[in-house]
Amino acid sequence: MTTPQTPSLVNEDEAIYELEKVLGARKDLEPDELAVMQEALENLSLRQVIELIERQPSKRGAVLLRLLAPQRATAAFDALDPGHQADIVGALAHEDVTDLFAALGVEDRVQLLDNLPAEIADQVMSGLDEEERESTNALMGYERGTVGRHMSPDVLVVEPADGVEGVVDKLKAEAENLETIYTLPVVDEDRVLIGITGLKDLFAANSGATIGDIMHEPAWAEATDDAEGTARWFLSTHHIAIPVVDADHRLVGIFTHDEAQDVIEGADNEDHARQGGSEALNKPYLSTPVVELFRSRVVWLLVLAVSAILTVQVLDVFEATIAEVTVLSLFIPLLTGTGGNTGNQAATTVTRALALGDVRKRDIAKVMWRECRVGLTLGAVLGTIGFALAWVVFSQEIGIIIGATLLCICTMSATVGGLMPILAKAIGADPAVFSNPFISTFCDATGLVVYFFIAKTVLGI
Amino acid sequence: MTTPQTPSLVNEDEAIYELEKVLGARKDLEPDELAVMQEALENLSLRQVIELIERQPSKRGAVLLRLLAPQRATAAFDALDPGHQADIVGALAHEDVTDLFAALGVEDRVQLLDNLPAEIADQVMSGLDEEERESTNALMGYERGTVGRHMSPDVLVVEPADGVEGVVDKLKAEAENLETIYTLPVVDEDRVLIGITGLKDLFAANSGATIGDIMHEPAWAEATDDAEGTARWFLSTHHIAIPVVDADHRLVGIFTHDEAQDVIEGADNEDHARQGGSEALNKPYLSTPVVELFRSRVVWLLVLAVSAILTVQVLDVFEATIAEVTVLSLFIPLLTGTGGNTGNQAATTVTRALALGDVRKRDIAKVMWRECRVGLTLGAVLGTIGFALAWVVFSQEIGIIIGATLLCICTMSATVGGLMPILAKAIGADPAVFSNPFISTFCDATGLVVYFFIAKTVLGI
Repeated sequence: MTTPQTPSLVNEDEAIYELEKVLGARKDLEPDELAVMQEALENLSLRQVIELIERQPSKRGAVLLRLLAPQRATAAFDALDPGHQADIVGALAHEDVTDLFAALGVEDRVQLLDNLPAEIADQVMSGLDEEERESTNALMGYERGTVGRHMSPDVLVVEPADGVEGVVDKLKAEAENLETIYTLPVVDEDRVLIGITGLKDLFAANSGATIGDIMHEPAWAEATDDAEGTARWFLSTHHIAIPVVDADHRLVGIFTHDEAQDVIEGADNEDHARQGGSEALNKPYLSTPVVELFRSRVVWLLVLAVSAILTVQVLDVFEATIAEVTVLSLFIPLLTGTGGNTGNQAATTVTRALALGDVRKRDIAKVMWRECRVGLTLGAVLGTIGFALAWVVFSQEIGIIIGATLLCICTMSATVGGLMPILAKAIGADPAVFSNPFISTFCDATGLVVYFFIAKTVLGI
Repeated sequence: MTTPQTPSLVNEDEAIYELEKVLGARKDLEPDELAVMQEALENLSLRQVIELIERQPSKRGAVLLRLLAPQRATAAFDALDPGHQADIVGALAHEDVTDLFAALGVEDRVQLLDNLPAEIADQVMSGLDEEERESTNALMGYERGTVGRHMSPDVLVVEPADGVEGVVDKLKAEAENLETIYTLPVVDEDRVLIGITGLKDLFAANSGATIGDIMHEPAWAEATDDAEGTARWFLSTHHIAIPVVDADHRLVGIFTHDEAQDVIEGADNEDHARQGGSEALNKPYLSTPVVELFRSRVVWLLVLAVSAILTVQVLDVFEATIAEVTVLSLFIPLLTGTGGNTGNQAATTVTRALALGDVRKRDIAKVMWRECRVGLTLGAVLGTIGFALAWVVFSQEIGIIIGATLLCICTMSATVGGLMPILAKAIGADPAVFSNPFISTFCDATGLVVYFFIAKTVLGI
């Protein structure tokens, strides 16, 4: 049996951790250690090298990158997150950066530029040749988050009258410089997109055929379309790449499945982070300095803490009631917690549905009506249990208060939780921002008002 | 200028909403209405039809599906989520189901079977021909969540001695039945994977060459490997498909980029939902009945509410302290909320890093040390502000209590929040389960203990 040389993709890799132990915690390596490390790196697969770099602080990553042969360094650098690339660029010498930057595809280059400080961005741009600089600037002209920002202009364009054989020759000659050869947009004399063909069609065609004979109707996106929505759509339809056009339906580039994948991963990272009340890191966790972790969280935490002062004020109003019936204070975390949980459930469900395109802004009434019913049912179940338990342990009055409060809180929280992400989207904010932390704070404050209102009514104070 | 026929991928579609208005809220359509609807459906693109079905209850979706021409119905059904497909199967007549089921690719069929009740699964399986049934059963033999469960066995296999021209002819003849023609695994006489080639290589090769001349080293996965991890890895390396082998390195199938994309989307849906304290829906939001939304949430909510009873007990212990110094109760939601938020930030960050493979189980000490430092810094900032505010508004003593409590709570919560997802993974549970709701409850209870301990010490009671 032949022994496989490349390891399976996901198994943990002892070789990486062994090397990491050698690196240890020291900041700098001695010259002779560098030679040893260089040899060790040569024995790793590209995938292992990338994983090793992703687990180190960026300065250390830059050192490792410099130890690699130029081609491997380029490939490894290409595979890193844009934020991580930017940190490494900051730690590398100017001439190293220029080479790595020029070797990136134009769409990856644009993502990196977004993460670089202005003066470094200018420096690396000046290292590009005229043509590369122009195509990079063209993409930078589109707004962030649009398809234009993520497309590649390097696509072979064919016309209906072109013969299949001629196109095949041209493809063979230019394959090296093209982003993809699987999808070929067909345009008319004004560069207006009129069809699509691809390697598979060329391959199946008779040699005497023209592109016009084999082209078919294209799926396409406009350069100003939302990149995340387009990426989700076209990946779910199993395309490998789709042509991108301007407002006049003229071809401007191609959006490939791997770039679409990067867009979705970036968007999901952001949603995950914001749902948890922090900013996305856009680089691997272990290569992120502690101070950046702190920065990604502190503003959120402060804003949430400041809005939580509202709960202090609400309770301040009811301080006399608490002083009179101290037992009411025991249920505060339980009630606010349950409200927060119900609100989060609704908010995260609707946020995800919005991201996937399952729900649109105009569905707001539908969503609220559904969430209101779900909340009411949940509230009925929890309220009944709460009533029974509080009656047994404390008193019938406390049971009624807890049961009624849970019913109201669940209904309100689910409705508001479903509403908030759609409202956020309607005003142009990120729905994920409202899906966890703000829902909790909101539910805390309103829940307490409801609680004490019910308590005062039932107890007659 | 030629007018484009297919609309851009992401723009909202008036045609769909118009038709939805016609459908209205009624459950059943009259025969003449069915005819009108059928004509209206014919004017929609496939993409529009799919979106329309995804916005309806499954019974209505089944009606729409039956109005489509057989080929369109197959394509539309193929594009739906497995959970949604299962609901529609339940609402369709037996003969319709058999056709739709047979038209699915084997890897999609397996996902659908996972969502069907046993007796319906047996029924639809019996409608398959012998060969299809065997290949379906082969995939069902792998555990859920493994690559084997998501691969396609329909791949053209070549050997090094095969001539390029012969392979090209074979590909042309069999292209219809193959999952992909872009990637061709190369095997030896024992079906052991020894290389890879693809349409691009065949295309660039001289006609006299053999596969042995043009094949290169493959990336591959084992059928028992984790599907999500493999999918993330291979999509980030921009492969279109990778060969799948058994423990003896013999080829058993191919794992394609679109299937990988589905795996990742499913995993992300689950993580999003659990992070928000509910189960994933595995069908579009608007086509999910309210009772299913209720079911996806109620168990979580009950479990969380029951664990929140811990907070009632903690407060019960300190009831005398609260009765003595009522002002202490005002800060309960603020303090537990901040602890919950800090814990969530850490937990969601680490959960995502685990999902992306940036952090492994063995990094547990590293992660705790990082989170402890981040938590301490966050606690120092919030504690200082809390101290100052509480001093000004209430008293110096209250200021000290609030400041010290925030410092302790933030440090503890961040550390525990970072630890929990890795512990969950170590015991084989889903890290996302521990990333939001349980962290909050845990932080609530321990935070209260810390709070009252500090308060009693400072106040000397």
